[in-house]
Amino acid sequence: MMPRVCLCLRSAIVLLVVTCCFGTAAAQTPDPLLSWNDGPVKKSITDFVPRVTTVGSPDFVPRDQRIATFDNDGTLWAEQPMYFQIMFAMDRVKMLAPRHPDWKKKQPFKAVLDDDRKALAALGEKGFLQIMAATHTGMTSEEFTRIATEWIATARHPRFNRPYTDLVYQPMLELLAYLRENGFKTFIVSGGGIEFMRPWTEKSYGIPPEQVVGSSAVTRFELRGDGTPVLLREGKIEFVDDKAGKPVGINRFIGRRPVFAFGNSDGDQQMLEWTAAGSGARFMGLVHHTDAVREWAYDRNSPVGRLDKAWDEAVRRGWTVVDMKRDWKKVFPFEP
Amino acid sequence: MMPRVCLCLRSAIVLLVVTCCFGTAAAQTPDPLLSWNDGPVKKSITDFVPRVTTVGSPDFVPRDQRIATFDNDGTLWAEQPMYFQIMFAMDRVKMLAPRHPDWKKKQPFKAVLDDDRKALAALGEKGFLQIMAATHTGMTSEEFTRIATEWIATARHPRFNRPYTDLVYQPMLELLAYLRENGFKTFIVSGGGIEFMRPWTEKSYGIPPEQVVGSSAVTRFELRGDGTPVLLREGKIEFVDDKAGKPVGINRFIGRRPVFAFGNSDGDQQMLEWTAAGSGARFMGLVHHTDAVREWAYDRNSPVGRLDKAWDEAVRRGWTVVDMKRDWKKVFPFEP
Repeated sequence: MMPRVCLCLRSAIVLLVVTCCFGTAAAQTPDPLLSWNDGPVKKSITDFVPRVTTVGSPDFVPRDQRIATFDNDGTLWAEQPMYFQIMFAMDRVKMLAPRHPDWKKKQPFKAVLDDDRKALAALGEKGFLQIMAATHTGMTSEEFTRIATEWIATARHPRFNRPYTDLVYQPMLELLAYLRENGFKTFIVSGGGIEFMRPWTEKSYGIPPEQVVGSSAVTRFELRGDGTPVLLREGKIEFVDDKAGKPVGINRFIGRRPVFAFGNSDGDQQMLEWTAAGSGARFMGLVHHTDAVREWAYDRNSPVGRLDKAWDEAVRRGWTVVDMKRDWKKVFPFEP
Repeated sequence: MMPRVCLCLRSAIVLLVVTCCFGTAAAQTPDPLLSWNDGPVKKSITDFVPRVTTVGSPDFVPRDQRIATFDNDGTLWAEQPMYFQIMFAMDRVKMLAPRHPDWKKKQPFKAVLDDDRKALAALGEKGFLQIMAATHTGMTSEEFTRIATEWIATARHPRFNRPYTDLVYQPMLELLAYLRENGFKTFIVSGGGIEFMRPWTEKSYGIPPEQVVGSSAVTRFELRGDGTPVLLREGKIEFVDDKAGKPVGINRFIGRRPVFAFGNSDGDQQMLEWTAAGSGARFMGLVHHTDAVREWAYDRNSPVGRLDKAWDEAVRRGWTVVDMKRDWKKVFPFEP
């Protein structure tokens, strides 16, 4: 018979090996979606993930094919009173105004400088494109990154008086982490500017720059006089990663069809359709903004983040629709 | 005093913990670049990698910034007598010819069908673009993937009578693996078609589709009559990921500047310049094709993979230039 002390050591070896090799996964798993209320929506997620990640399941998806794509504005962070990138552009118009005295009298800039909401609402696409061109182009890619990084670190949301990156959705942060823990590669597929998002998505969402797909300006490589190479952002749109552009962007940047996709507006409808049309198990989700107290309530008639046709399709096809008020215990990380 | 058997168990615990937690890294490391001959070129690689990956080194690069980009044709696999994608296009012209009886008399197709090397050489860019459009577009993205996958699995290289994917370079496979073992994320940045490469790069190089950057055709999302969404490849070039397009592609797809880049021709010059212009330690490398016996020998005057200005710049700036004949013990994996 072995002495008792050695039996203890044997147990210790087994414990150490288990701990070293498998971590604490074998211990009881805490709820990965703590900020989601129990109900059919949460269940649709927690049913789907084991279904596609358990070896031997008829719906098993190999790890390298576990692609999950998320819209950004209104899906991962808030988008009211306007897309935050538009708020950035308007702050930037004000900052640049001293260098452009003519803007005081010239639309669309005058509307921004006067904080004239009526005139702003009437600008239309052409006016916004002029504002975007004046604030987002005519500089190198590195300069733009610096400007965007500075704004995101210092600007404050008018309603919450907090940095914009505080307005990310806690339940979605948990969902991103839960998917990654289960071998998914998480991507952003947003109509927003790719170079506007990349400086902060890794810190805010754990999504690195190379997993961010977005709209872009034409960019040109140039050798400066001293031989320094630069990438110049030109005043021309190269790619709009919205609506039918989303499946195109997914195909171009990722090259695989997602098995999991989440959006919140009609701009995401084609991404969800593209995801749904793949073979095997798929998850399609929409965030419905129903909480005017903690966040905002808007859908069919909202000028920002309109949710109309995609909602009807989601209901018809049994996709998951999050009712923010009902399904989210907590909206923002700063809530108590 | 503890009984001797327990001391043994204690040692066993320590050994198990070390093995479980640190793998066998502490044991003697086998040469990760077995197919590289010793010399300054191999040394430039094996000096650089620990320099940027050792914590406390003045040149340390955090793991998330270890981006390595590789050209494909002539850098990771061969490119003679023509880019393999052109060989694919020509095979495809022959396969499609019965459906296009007019091709027998019509250039550029006639030159392909007659195997008329002189006429082929005289086609110029316009002729090749017509061949590319006829063979690469007018189908869905999925159909193209199927066609490319089938070709790569069955076609054979005229000189070696082997599948084209046998003509990958063994030393570069070792280099890719060595970089990944050291926390680098490896990308292809090629002038070749992105959808031509993606079906086989994971199997051949361990590089997944989302880490392949390449040239692309305009692609359009469309809902078919039965509601099936498709992506249609149209007969228009969207992006040429070559020369000045390479830094643009890197910025668009990856969003970070590489710290390590490898090419083989003037088409890679701007990628190397862009890499070199970053702050901190950088590695820039070129493959010089000097081995007419095992592979091919060509440089300044080659119509395919011309290496002229980039070579001069590499020599002037002290970048690494591989002399294939001298530096590679083995070129292809099938060599004994």
